[in-house]
Amino acid sequence: MPALPPLNPPIRTLLGPGPSDIHPRVLAAMARPTVGHLDPYYLQVMDKVQGGLRELFRTTNRMTFAVSGTGSAGMEATVVNLIEPGDAMIVGVNGVFGGRMTDVAERAGAKVTKIERPWGEVFTPEEVQKAVDAVKPKVVGIVMAETSTGAYQPIEEIAKIVHDAGALLLVDAVTSLGGVPVEVDKWGIDAIYSGTQKCLSCPPGLAPVSFNQRAMDVILGRKTKVQSWYLDVTMLANYWGSDRVYHHTAPINMSYGLYEAVSIILEEGLDACFARHALNHRALKAGLAAIGIKYAAQEGYQLPMLNAVHVPAGVDEAKVRSDLLNRFGIEIGAGLGAFKGKVWRIGLMGYGARPANVYLVLSALEQLLAEQGCKFEAGASVAAASEVYRG
Amino acid sequence: MPALPPLNPPIRTLLGPGPSDIHPRVLAAMARPTVGHLDPYYLQVMDKVQGGLRELFRTTNRMTFAVSGTGSAGMEATVVNLIEPGDAMIVGVNGVFGGRMTDVAERAGAKVTKIERPWGEVFTPEEVQKAVDAVKPKVVGIVMAETSTGAYQPIEEIAKIVHDAGALLLVDAVTSLGGVPVEVDKWGIDAIYSGTQKCLSCPPGLAPVSFNQRAMDVILGRKTKVQSWYLDVTMLANYWGSDRVYHHTAPINMSYGLYEAVSIILEEGLDACFARHALNHRALKAGLAAIGIKYAAQEGYQLPMLNAVHVPAGVDEAKVRSDLLNRFGIEIGAGLGAFKGKVWRIGLMGYGARPANVYLVLSALEQLLAEQGCKFEAGASVAAASEVYRG
Repeated sequence: MPALPPLNPPIRTLLGPGPSDIHPRVLAAMARPTVGHLDPYYLQVMDKVQGGLRELFRTTNRMTFAVSGTGSAGMEATVVNLIEPGDAMIVGVNGVFGGRMTDVAERAGAKVTKIERPWGEVFTPEEVQKAVDAVKPKVVGIVMAETSTGAYQPIEEIAKIVHDAGALLLVDAVTSLGGVPVEVDKWGIDAIYSGTQKCLSCPPGLAPVSFNQRAMDVILGRKTKVQSWYLDVTMLANYWGSDRVYHHTAPINMSYGLYEAVSIILEEGLDACFARHALNHRALKAGLAAIGIKYAAQEGYQLPMLNAVHVPAGVDEAKVRSDLLNRFGIEIGAGLGAFKGKVWRIGLMGYGARPANVYLVLSALEQLLAEQGCKFEAGASVAAASEVYRG
Repeated sequence: MPALPPLNPPIRTLLGPGPSDIHPRVLAAMARPTVGHLDPYYLQVMDKVQGGLRELFRTTNRMTFAVSGTGSAGMEATVVNLIEPGDAMIVGVNGVFGGRMTDVAERAGAKVTKIERPWGEVFTPEEVQKAVDAVKPKVVGIVMAETSTGAYQPIEEIAKIVHDAGALLLVDAVTSLGGVPVEVDKWGIDAIYSGTQKCLSCPPGLAPVSFNQRAMDVILGRKTKVQSWYLDVTMLANYWGSDRVYHHTAPINMSYGLYEAVSIILEEGLDACFARHALNHRALKAGLAAIGIKYAAQEGYQLPMLNAVHVPAGVDEAKVRSDLLNRFGIEIGAGLGAFKGKVWRIGLMGYGARPANVYLVLSALEQLLAEQGCKFEAGASVAAASEVYRG
């Protein structure tokens, strides 16, 4: 049998919806020597990863750990542990990922009531209040950073409404964690999941999650077994907790990557990290505005790390993306679902959120749009971005 | 916030039940530049990985791919796709992993009938025939390589019995794939799963799986949705198939590792790879016999890559393992479940299956047993192993 051709991935600048640009230190960490999943050193790695994730989630939750799967496995892990067949759940759907959460919850036997908003908009506390009053749910699930639309959902007021109704709040923080404040304890988020491949600058493959005591009490009081053995938090607690009882073989080298990724964020400091994301977003937005490109998400509720923008009229959007990839090595994202063919998604996540990338994507985009006949002053986007950086 | 301490994993020789020693080329592959999960290059990587896995599984099954989770996620993926609530399933339980499959299947709503054998023994075709006649199951699940006992279950005759009864055969090949022949098409295995961290010499994190058309027809004819969104093969088929429809963000760098791991095996050739595992197993076994150590699994049905052996009387088994780890940097496995405290598990898997490791573990073990008062001729184990290598 012939061997496979040599593995030679091209060098990309990943400015799509994730995976984002990986920090070189994280890639190096992935290649460190593998140890056993019960090795004393690996148990230290787990402890430190848990401690670091608690800082990122701003929580003291004991059950804070990384699910051995991608962000979608984190979604499934939180849903299937909280939900028993017949439980009422409200899910906010204003993009792909709210829709996905609905599907996951229904497969777990939840009676799901969807509250909906046009793509790009966010939910008001009043809407949530109304739905909670009508449904009396066990769980309310909401997406904090809708990766398909770039909408930035405020959580704090909603959390209060959910708790006042005696329900649990489940938050999708796949794209938000590490890019904007995610205050698990202060806001009272009961269960939350994220992914490594967005603002943590780590390859996809792990899903940081956290459950507070209120959520764990609900899980420990279940009448039925969690439908997934692999994702059963009551068993995972024995491995990630002090007992270290073998459950499944953890993805050791992925954990090394996450360890390094978390450390890099702690070194920078969360507030500095959020400020950096915000600044680069403002520069990108100013640059895009200067060449007539507008955001798809509601003004005032736009994510800094995921810039979903309307494709200008008359532009071949797929050609722009393939030219960016093939001529400049830049990946940006296409629109999904209702936004397919209409929107580009430009990610400035984690290590990727830096001026070099803002200037690069603006320069390249300007050139390609000019080639397709768009009219604007040459250099306008870069000049506008520069003005933001100069303050 | 303080950063985490520098990541400095110790250098181990991994001779436990997995993760096994990782091939250096695989570790290097893990650190290659990340590309997007829909990047044209990554789609090629997926194609090549699928092609390589088909060679390893000896199958032409279109639905051959890697689940984005560890081996246990592979178990869950195969079970939850095949099983609908109320379906009858037979599971062979002669160790930890048959027990786990039972749990996974029951959580999926299966009515499970266990057939049981003492730990270390394998099932006869007659036993399976009897159970199949009595239960008329939809699925029969069996573990080919019981990692907890080292028992090597023959599959071919059982496959025929299962098919004659109109049922589907599901095989756990987590530890067997790449170490002994796994003939998916020839034997007629309908669904199978494995893990990267055993004989593929790759870190844990992916689960190669394969479904034949008979299994896919059953899945496509389901009356209910697969309970797991993350593991739903009908959706995964659109991503791993020619449509390449986005499902979840694939673990890119883990896939690089698997790509390199598969290529290394294809370069060696499967038959040469199996012969190497067999030879090193015989050398280890001869060496262990020379110092009075006996196998836990039934004679004639012992796995080459997972050598479960009885701890000699009077020996502090935990001290031997910790001395191996701390003084020699060697990891071997403890006993699980019924074998806890009674058995060691010595893995010679993939890249780890080589004379250097056989001599290393025998020499170290001999010294530590002598220190604990065991009596045998000094150098006996190494001499016996050497005799095997010299032929």
